[in-house]
Amino acid sequence: MRNIKCTIEYDGSKFIGWQIQPSSQRTVQGEIIKAWKKVSGETIKLIGSGRTDTGVHALGQVANFKTKSSLPIESIKNALNAKLPKDIVILEAKEVKGDFHAQYSAKRKTYRYVILNREDRPGLMNNYCLHFPHKLNLSAMRKEAKSLKGKKDFKTFQSSDPKRKTKSTVRTIKRIEIKKSQDTVSVEIEADGFLYKMVRNIVGTLLETGTGKRPAGNIKEILTKKDRKLAGPTAKPDGLYLVKVQH
Amino acid sequence: MRNIKCTIEYDGSKFIGWQIQPSSQRTVQGEIIKAWKKVSGETIKLIGSGRTDTGVHALGQVANFKTKSSLPIESIKNALNAKLPKDIVILEAKEVKGDFHAQYSAKRKTYRYVILNREDRPGLMNNYCLHFPHKLNLSAMRKEAKSLKGKKDFKTFQSSDPKRKTKSTVRTIKRIEIKKSQDTVSVEIEADGFLYKMVRNIVGTLLETGTGKRPAGNIKEILTKKDRKLAGPTAKPDGLYLVKVQH
Repeated sequence: MRNIKCTIEYDGSKFIGWQIQPSSQRTVQGEIIKAWKKVSGETIKLIGSGRTDTGVHALGQVANFKTKSSLPIESIKNALNAKLPKDIVILEAKEVKGDFHAQYSAKRKTYRYVILNREDRPGLMNNYCLHFPHKLNLSAMRKEAKSLKGKKDFKTFQSSDPKRKTKSTVRTIKRIEIKKSQDTVSVEIEADGFLYKMVRNIVGTLLETGTGKRPAGNIKEILTKKDRKLAGPTAKPDGLYLVKVQH
Repeated sequence: MRNIKCTIEYDGSKFIGWQIQPSSQRTVQGEIIKAWKKVSGETIKLIGSGRTDTGVHALGQVANFKTKSSLPIESIKNALNAKLPKDIVILEAKEVKGDFHAQYSAKRKTYRYVILNREDRPGLMNNYCLHFPHKLNLSAMRKEAKSLKGKKDFKTFQSSDPKRKTKSTVRTIKRIEIKKSQDTVSVEIEADGFLYKMVRNIVGTLLETGTGKRPAGNIKEILTKKDRKLAGPTAKPDGLYLVKVQH
């Protein structure tokens, strides 16, 4: 069996997320499996580097699948793209070693939040940004964000859903950058992995730093307490992008 | 009667354009008229700075209307936004002199084309960019674009639709800028006014310069010939934005 690694861009707006569901609702994983079935007749097991939530977009999601097909690698990409709906595109298909596993082999992931920081709601970027109407103190946010860098226990920022709790809540944030361009603020986080909802909980908390609701030193403090209740609300998925997965 | 000037942002994807139609299809003008009717009971005549085609977006369209309403100006904006669909937002409402006319008083307009210049079709920016898969020689395009600057007869770039021809085809292009950022090329044109389809015809022609189909000097030459048949194809409206209207 050949092992095919795909790099995928998608618009999350009209999907209930990456992961295929028992219901017939539209998922990215489901659409790719369907497309490959049309190409080759095979029903593949498609492994994603991680699931993205409803509405979350990807510029470079990575997935892999095993196939008996003898199609040349370029044709695999083109055939899939021809069968995929227009809100999913395969940017690269590559043959990799048999032991490559999109989830377990992932070494680093980058997520970006795009925040429209102005009073007026978006007219144009609906579904593609998080609207935040209150003034943000970016320098306070940048200072606090530093406390999140490095190898830490991120239990405080895990999902409050007991079903989605993980054994080890230790992760390493390599980079966290907050940028501004006109009305748009972006928060980019690169880590060796993320707990479920960790990015959304971090951003929800940082926005409270930005409005002055949380004083300097608060993030460092709540990290040590390891209590989800101390973090801010989960930011809405609008405007969240899975930028890159490195293996 | 008070005269109200509005600056409007909208997502053109789900409109058949700015201008209200005899059919019941969704238009930006129609939605704003409906929203104001809900606010005040009045049926206004809404004057836009110009019509935008199906699918064309606006970051700063300008329109004005006369009203008997005594609502404070801030409430006019907020009341309209509360009634408008989420793909239209009023960014500013301002009371102006009675003789202000969004179309006739317009002194300058800026349009931007956002072009996704890569082989792969877009997965994420569908409806928000023009996909152009062929390599572009930007320096050739920038050189040729210079021939378009200044006061010229743009007859060559007018619409081929005989119903949409204007008496005077002379316009002044103040600025034409071609920028690149990663896979995205943008063409921004600022002029005292545009003929119908002029931006789309100019961009369609410049793309042919970019692929080498049109040699250096060609644009200068076809301008003097004043023949629409000599220009390139009308670029699709995907990725076209009305950025700004100055009065």
